[in-house]
Amino acid sequence: MNGRDGSSERHEHGGGRQVEAVTTRVFDLLGRRWSGPIIAVLLAGPAHFTELRRAVPGISERMLSDRLAHLAAAGLVAREVNPGPPLRVRYRLTQAGAAIRPALEELQDWALAHLGDPARGDPP
Amino acid sequence: MNGRDGSSERHEHGGGRQVEAVTTRVFDLLGRRWSGPIIAVLLAGPAHFTELRRAVPGISERMLSDRLAHLAAAGLVAREVNPGPPLRVRYRLTQAGAAIRPALEELQDWALAHLGDPARGDPP
Repeated sequence: MNGRDGSSERHEHGGGRQVEAVTTRVFDLLGRRWSGPIIAVLLAGPAHFTELRRAVPGISERMLSDRLAHLAAAGLVAREVNPGPPLRVRYRLTQAGAAIRPALEELQDWALAHLGDPARGDPP
Repeated sequence: MNGRDGSSERHEHGGGRQVEAVTTRVFDLLGRRWSGPIIAVLLAGPAHFTELRRAVPGISERMLSDRLAHLAAAGLVAREVNPGPPLRVRYRLTQAGAAIRPALEELQDWALAHLGDPARGDPP
C-alpha cells in the first residue's frame, strides 16, 4: 500500500510531513463521534432505528439519524424498507461497510492490549 | 478476542444488542476529530508541535493541544523535553501508541478499497 510504511509521511523528516489523503478520508468517517460504534453494532446484523438507538448508549435520535445519513452517503450503510403494514425501515451494512470487520477487530485487539479497562481500574 | 465474532452483540438478535465496552473505548479516542490523523503522523516519527500543526491541515493550536493532552492521558503519546537552549518539546508515540500501526494499516487498506477517492471523482 502506498505509504503504509510511513514513507510518504517521512520524506522530509521533521519538515514537510503531511497526513495522507487516505488517512484523512478514514477519519472523516470514524473521527465523528458514534460512527464507529454504529458500524460495530451493524456488523452483528441489520437493525431498526430504535434497536440501534438502544445499542449505542447516549446517542440522540438526531445524532443517530445524522450519522446513518453520513454512512449511507459514503456507501457503507443501506436502508431496507419493509412496506408492512406497519412500514418498517432497517439499516444494514453494504459490502463495503461489512469489509471493515478485520480492521475493526485489529483496533479492538489493540484496545484490549493497550488501552486498559477503566471499569476494572486498569492504568490507561 | 471476546465478542470479535459479534456474538456478544448478537445474543438477543434484534433485541438487547449493545456496543461492546472495548469498541466504546477505541472510539472515545479515535472518534474525536484529529486524533487519528495525529497518531498517523507520529507513526512516522516524533515531531514538534509546529510540525504536527503543519502536518494536520485545518487543525487549530488549541485543538492540537487538547488532542495531544488526551492522547497523553491515555498513555499513547509522550512529551520529550530538550532543555536547549532553546527549550524544545517534541511528541512521540509510546509503545502502546505505536502498537496501533497494524490496525491503522488495515483501516487504510479498507479505505483505499472501499471509500473511493473524492479527489479523483470516484464514487463513494
